Amino acid sequence: MNLLFKISCGLFVLCAKAGKEESGCIINTFLQQTAVPETFSITVNKRNFSHDLVEQSGECVVAILSTETDFETIKRFGMQSGRSVDKFDGIDFKTTSIGIKVPYIKGIMGYFALKVLKTVDMGTHTMFVLSTVENKAFVESGDALTYDYYQNFIKPKPEIKTIERTEKWVCKICGYIHEGPLPPDFICPLCKHPASDFEKVQ
Amino acid sequence: MNLLFKISCGLFVLCAKAGKEESGCIINTFLQQTAVPETFSITVNKRNFSHDLVEQSGECVVAILSTETDFETIKRFGMQSGRSVDKFDGIDFKTTSIGIKVPYIKGIMGYFALKVLKTVDMGTHTMFVLSTVENKAFVESGDALTYDYYQNFIKPKPEIKTIERTEKWVCKICGYIHEGPLPPDFICPLCKHPASDFEKVQ
Repeated sequence: MNLLFKISCGLFVLCAKAGKEESGCIINTFLQQTAVPETFSITVNKRNFSHDLVEQSGECVVAILSTETDFETIKRFGMQSGRSVDKFDGIDFKTTSIGIKVPYIKGIMGYFALKVLKTVDMGTHTMFVLSTVENKAFVESGDALTYDYYQNFIKPKPEIKTIERTEKWVCKICGYIHEGPLPPDFICPLCKHPASDFEKVQ
Repeated sequence: MNLLFKISCGLFVLCAKAGKEESGCIINTFLQQTAVPETFSITVNKRNFSHDLVEQSGECVVAILSTETDFETIKRFGMQSGRSVDKFDGIDFKTTSIGIKVPYIKGIMGYFALKVLKTVDMGTHTMFVLSTVENKAFVESGDALTYDYYQNFIKPKPEIKTIERTEKWVCKICGYIHEGPLPPDFICPLCKHPASDFEKVQ
């Protein structure tokens, strides 16, 4: 049993804006740190565009996902870069009190609008320690999406017939599966780890 | 809906030792921070005895709980102080490679033995950033215990007939219920918040 997969965490959409640039990404590292004062933390990969936007603006919004989340939402925010696409294009959104957009679609239970108090360098990632400016629930009830639930019930299962035909590579870090040959400069679209962290599915 | 309760997290036993002193406590703040190198974080209330032991020794063990965990285990490690009782008294345990005991009982799925890399002052709490020395699974499979699952399925429900007779106070931070009058110096046995964070159940 891989104990790393047994460290429970949720799944969230981190939204951020700096100047005219605005984006979002999927994170699984939102945690309440202290109750008095109410502080939180997020840890974000430095390669993510949203990371830079949080760093530049000192602000962000974290939306809490429910088990009603569609895989399309994970793909939209987690599997493409905000450097090349507008992740809010074609979906409903609200603009929070700090001017940052938050998706207003199925699966979004509500959000915390947050201000950076402190940054901690974690090597490949930055941890931001945050205080709340505003929080708002979009729904009356619902079950929060955990990373475990996502892996078991939302992420599409690979189809057996294509496994037999196509070369597949699995990211040892996050479990993302790439189909076809793996270029040496490949970066995992989900967790941003390099090709060296992939192994061929036999 | 209280969005704070929708930030998913697990439940863990933090075990620590300094000199001859050894203890453990319940935490819900164990998270993987980075994959390369593999780092983790825990955030621990400064009032906890285990906090001081981690700070003094620079080492700890985090055991991962499963949904098989008994409420007795939560009470043993989470609702009494290691300053006055030996939390390992009367239960099976293993001694890890770094010399720290870990409970070896129903509900413990395995553990990470960890070394402190960095400490971050979070006010009421300290965050410890850690690297792994060893990890070991005790079981082949199982579902990790989340804080949400604990609240819904493991924590005993208050009995309606006693609510009618006895004064009750609920901790606004963690939901712990105290029966009877609340002394002004009362400290929540679960989250260590003071009497001012309790409100009377009507």
